[in-house]
Amino acid sequence: MNTHQTISATRPPQAALDTVRDALAKKFGNRYSANETVRQQHGHTLTWTPTQAPDAVVFAQSTEEVAEIVKLCALNRVPVIPYGTGTSLEGHVNAPFGGICIDLSQMKQVVAVHAEDLNVVVEPGITRKELNEYLRDTGLFFPIDPGADASIGGMVSTRASGTNAVRYGTMKDNVLSLTVVMPDGEIVKTASRAKKSSAGYDLTRLFVGAEGTLGVITQITLRLYGIPEAISAGVCTFPSVRACCDATIATIQSGLPVARIELLDALMVHAVNLHSKLGLPEEPMLLLEFHGTDASVKEQAERFGEIAREFGGGDFAWATKPEDRTKLWQARHDAYWAGFTLRPGAKTLASDVCVPISRLADCVEETYRDLAEANLVAPILGHVGDGNFHVNLLVDMDNKDEVTRTEQFLERLVLRGIAMEGTCTGEHGVGQAKMKYLPKEHAPATLDLMRTLKRSIDPLNIMNPGKVVAV
Amino acid sequence: MNTHQTISATRPPQAALDTVRDALAKKFGNRYSANETVRQQHGHTLTWTPTQAPDAVVFAQSTEEVAEIVKLCALNRVPVIPYGTGTSLEGHVNAPFGGICIDLSQMKQVVAVHAEDLNVVVEPGITRKELNEYLRDTGLFFPIDPGADASIGGMVSTRASGTNAVRYGTMKDNVLSLTVVMPDGEIVKTASRAKKSSAGYDLTRLFVGAEGTLGVITQITLRLYGIPEAISAGVCTFPSVRACCDATIATIQSGLPVARIELLDALMVHAVNLHSKLGLPEEPMLLLEFHGTDASVKEQAERFGEIAREFGGGDFAWATKPEDRTKLWQARHDAYWAGFTLRPGAKTLASDVCVPISRLADCVEETYRDLAEANLVAPILGHVGDGNFHVNLLVDMDNKDEVTRTEQFLERLVLRGIAMEGTCTGEHGVGQAKMKYLPKEHAPATLDLMRTLKRSIDPLNIMNPGKVVAV
Repeated sequence: MNTHQTISATRPPQAALDTVRDALAKKFGNRYSANETVRQQHGHTLTWTPTQAPDAVVFAQSTEEVAEIVKLCALNRVPVIPYGTGTSLEGHVNAPFGGICIDLSQMKQVVAVHAEDLNVVVEPGITRKELNEYLRDTGLFFPIDPGADASIGGMVSTRASGTNAVRYGTMKDNVLSLTVVMPDGEIVKTASRAKKSSAGYDLTRLFVGAEGTLGVITQITLRLYGIPEAISAGVCTFPSVRACCDATIATIQSGLPVARIELLDALMVHAVNLHSKLGLPEEPMLLLEFHGTDASVKEQAERFGEIAREFGGGDFAWATKPEDRTKLWQARHDAYWAGFTLRPGAKTLASDVCVPISRLADCVEETYRDLAEANLVAPILGHVGDGNFHVNLLVDMDNKDEVTRTEQFLERLVLRGIAMEGTCTGEHGVGQAKMKYLPKEHAPATLDLMRTLKRSIDPLNIMNPGKVVAV
Repeated sequence: MNTHQTISATRPPQAALDTVRDALAKKFGNRYSANETVRQQHGHTLTWTPTQAPDAVVFAQSTEEVAEIVKLCALNRVPVIPYGTGTSLEGHVNAPFGGICIDLSQMKQVVAVHAEDLNVVVEPGITRKELNEYLRDTGLFFPIDPGADASIGGMVSTRASGTNAVRYGTMKDNVLSLTVVMPDGEIVKTASRAKKSSAGYDLTRLFVGAEGTLGVITQITLRLYGIPEAISAGVCTFPSVRACCDATIATIQSGLPVARIELLDALMVHAVNLHSKLGLPEEPMLLLEFHGTDASVKEQAERFGEIAREFGGGDFAWATKPEDRTKLWQARHDAYWAGFTLRPGAKTLASDVCVPISRLADCVEETYRDLAEANLVAPILGHVGDGNFHVNLLVDMDNKDEVTRTEQFLERLVLRGIAMEGTCTGEHGVGQAKMKYLPKEHAPATLDLMRTLKRSIDPLNIMNPGKVVAV
């Protein structure tokens, strides 16, 4: 404790790297690649952070293979970067010190569905859509849905969230147990399949949100939920984003068990209309969904209607057919991509902050003023029921002044969220890009404790170095 | 990692202890006590584990005072034992190596109620009933309710649960942030008040369930919930405990959002009737409660009625008046004390295991057979919606053979739970009494990781030594 020392890494010596690469090439054959294109792909994330490619990529197929790779890397002090789908937003899979990327996309088995216990055991490479496709006939579903069709392992690692979190919680609330290959190659199973336990430290939550810096997750037990008997969804427009936020706050405070309550501002709706060929009214709106029985869904919608009217909400436009509902939510999930239609050639920088819900309207309103003053283009959208919103900045990377203004805006956005007792990231994670903001959010003693965890679990700093608290 | 080394403690040298005691006596005046009675009280828990008193007790009144005490103890390598209400069940507050007990019962301020954000900031000494009393006029409540009127700090530390967990989760799900005095006296705030965050490792969950072995919790931010518009509660008898369990399993699997679903066996009902002067039918029964709107509560009760009938459930006897409802749940919470009426003079040993819900009926049924064969008296009750049940053994401590049979039974109970993919404790925690079962539940690598955490955060092993993974 209280060393205040940073944890730093360096590139491994070439000889160590060669030893590891030769051994992996021999062992894994065509599941090993040092090909330039493959390497570049694996250092690329959906951000403006420059790609930093690993030295090689191995496509693992089992926990034991991952353990073998990690042991070899530990012996030679070569960095290990776990990789799911590469859809993270803050440079999580970059390899600033080189090393071996373990691509887990071939580990996508559903190991066991325990329908009667409402849980499932999966490998980390399966994506959220693949999992729900697999579960379709069981009447169960897994609710966490970040924008991208991310891998479950990646979602665990970033403590992902999404549109259903307001009702079903985040990954933190929905992981029962993990199997993790530790930085020395040991295999740890964190917990049993019991719904709750007080049998020792919460090792599961230690790895949820650790972004691969404490080990490689190779198996995950997730909670499942019954597909609701009745679902109703639709959109409701409001005279302003502030009114959307205020209606959301009132909805949450009233205890209405809304399943989804998502903000899109007028610019975002415009982009979504263009991208997904929808005809939504281009005004600030909330996208909503209610889950329950026929009667309860009807009652929830009526109650929401009453709240919405207090804040000038228009009529609720229902998406009654399942295919219309799917189209609506797919459009919401494609918001990141839709942004590009507003400014072709621009990079999208999707940043997220999360504040206590009472501060949401203020935070969003100040952010609009800030965007206007900085002359930046950015639709705003978000999981407003959790106090979490996204600013999808569309940046002309060739315009140095704009890039600088964007960087300065991002810092102000983060500081604004933190000043309102919020966090610099609600769900995207720290990766590389938000490391510099951690000291704004956490006191030195708090960061020291995080470093103590990192140092004790990964003393060689080989697990995804250069992320979270290890520079 | 993988040292497989135990972490052990010894009593501090008398000179070190004298130094600490003299300094504390001088500083804290009448808030310091080395009085025999006070010391005995503070080493006593609700178990058959023999009392191991601390060397002195200090009644702290602020985070800064706690930090000062811990720093002094760290300097002199004297153990520190945090104390709330002393209602834990596995010897959590015993002082096997002596040391200083920090009694937090004078730290019971409600620091801030953020009604609009549905959260509250409290000091650790406030009890769950005191908190809900304080919140009464806000229309909000805190749902977690272990049997005893435990302190919130203690509930965080044991990862407590209770009758509402099936709907509202456990302490793990309801703590937003903690202030913790670390073993070196540094003060760490784990997180902001945002409802979710991905800004680094989950330090909050590191301390939830750590049983005071990693630091002293001095402030807690908790989630709150709106008091439901409508509540209905009542009891439903069944022909057997198996039928109760089967009806519970079907209820959970159907997705019915029951708020409470609690099992009492016939013997437990008999004891509750005697203790709380109720006239419940002395048959296996489920106590239930539904939360929602008038219409949804009615619908939930009807749906439960349909399920219950499939398993031979009798008519649902409603507790319609709030005072009847309170009486019913108070009786449930007093079950521990009610047990004594069955066998005056006996000690109650309340043990809990938790299994995936599909195994619940089997686990309970095998446990009855085992009790009968071992000739032991124990009502069974539990939070069956979570797969969690309690066996309240009534033991004549003067009968050595019975004590031995009880110990052997406990081991079989735990092994049975673990064999069914469950855990040796769903909510009571490890303390001293369940340390020996951790290696049955967790593999060596898992326990190693727990020890790595303990060793790195508390290298001197002064924080509540002799508990969880540090012998």
